[in-house]
Amino acid sequence: MQQGCCVWFTGLPCCGKTTVADLVAEELKRRGLRVERLDGDIVRQSLTRDLGFSKEDRDKNIERVTFVAKLLSRNGVAVLVSFVSPYIKARNNARKETTNFVEIFVDCPVEVCEQRDVKDMYKKARAGEIKDFTGVDDPYEAPRHPEIVLKVAEATPEQCRDTVLHKLEEFGYIPAATTTAKQSGSTEDEQVYSKEEEQKIQKRLEDLGYL
Amino acid sequence: MQQGCCVWFTGLPCCGKTTVADLVAEELKRRGLRVERLDGDIVRQSLTRDLGFSKEDRDKNIERVTFVAKLLSRNGVAVLVSFVSPYIKARNNARKETTNFVEIFVDCPVEVCEQRDVKDMYKKARAGEIKDFTGVDDPYEAPRHPEIVLKVAEATPEQCRDTVLHKLEEFGYIPAATTTAKQSGSTEDEQVYSKEEEQKIQKRLEDLGYL
Repeated sequence: MQQGCCVWFTGLPCCGKTTVADLVAEELKRRGLRVERLDGDIVRQSLTRDLGFSKEDRDKNIERVTFVAKLLSRNGVAVLVSFVSPYIKARNNARKETTNFVEIFVDCPVEVCEQRDVKDMYKKARAGEIKDFTGVDDPYEAPRHPEIVLKVAEATPEQCRDTVLHKLEEFGYIPAATTTAKQSGSTEDEQVYSKEEEQKIQKRLEDLGYL
Repeated sequence: MQQGCCVWFTGLPCCGKTTVADLVAEELKRRGLRVERLDGDIVRQSLTRDLGFSKEDRDKNIERVTFVAKLLSRNGVAVLVSFVSPYIKARNNARKETTNFVEIFVDCPVEVCEQRDVKDMYKKARAGEIKDFTGVDDPYEAPRHPEIVLKVAEATPEQCRDTVLHKLEEFGYIPAATTTAKQSGSTEDEQVYSKEEEQKIQKRLEDLGYL
């Protein structure tokens, strides 16, 4: 019987959480596993329709999402949660409440997020048109001990997907799929976190002035 | 693999929804099935902590519960929901959204509910201390075509439990458990809705002046 888990993607707005989580969900479904996605766009239609972006509302939002993730993950569902979820305390509560919690820090320089922002939200936040915008006038508290760090500026979404899948297999939260790597076009050598890759990423980030 | 379902208990405050739903949950767990209970006492701690009892808040409450029941029921969980849920429209929406919806009308004369009210809520409502109390100053819209009617004033909670279990087996939402009837101390003859029972109930209700 499938083991449930709660895979929690956190990171700045427009960093790519939803893209990677959707790719992971797609692959898990292809493998015949029970999967649910909890994402801002989904839950704001019903569960959290009344909430804004103040600290209090963000906390309530995450609290309700955590409740749903708790029930699903303890009933054998792989729940993929993607929210900015900027506060450590709220994420730690989700860790405590859910089954097989995996925190994924979707790590991306704010400048890159801003370039990816098709809805011009950063622009509006900088112009003061949106208040309490994480990364502009509201803080983002990066995870201290996440299970996975995805350096999304340095890897393709497919590579990030495979990193997550391998980790979930390693934890035993999903069955190992030996045929998958080939099908999804990746090999062990292409895995995001080989030592060589890590060094390349480090060098590139230094060149870009982030380190 | 277990089929999910959403078993929805509706009825006046203090009519016995929670008691019967808990008994059904207990038996389903004993059979090794995946079960979740959604009840006022449970969800008001997290999911709907901000809500009161106005029509608008009741609708929001049921909307959130429906969202959770949808995700659970479509993932193979038997969700047992017990709320006054007085409005037909909100319940019909739950029917539409969830998988294998079973509406249970927990039918009980308001006088009997009032006798069972250990927290004196009816008393307070009649004294005007509680507003928008269903059955006193807020309407209860009885289901028109519920899958099950439980005449709880005329049957023991255990009999009601067995009625629900038999119906769920009949619908194919849970596997038939041939050994259960004996273990739970009931037989076919004791089933709540035999013709004889129906007549006895009818007579008793007439004697009590309800018909």
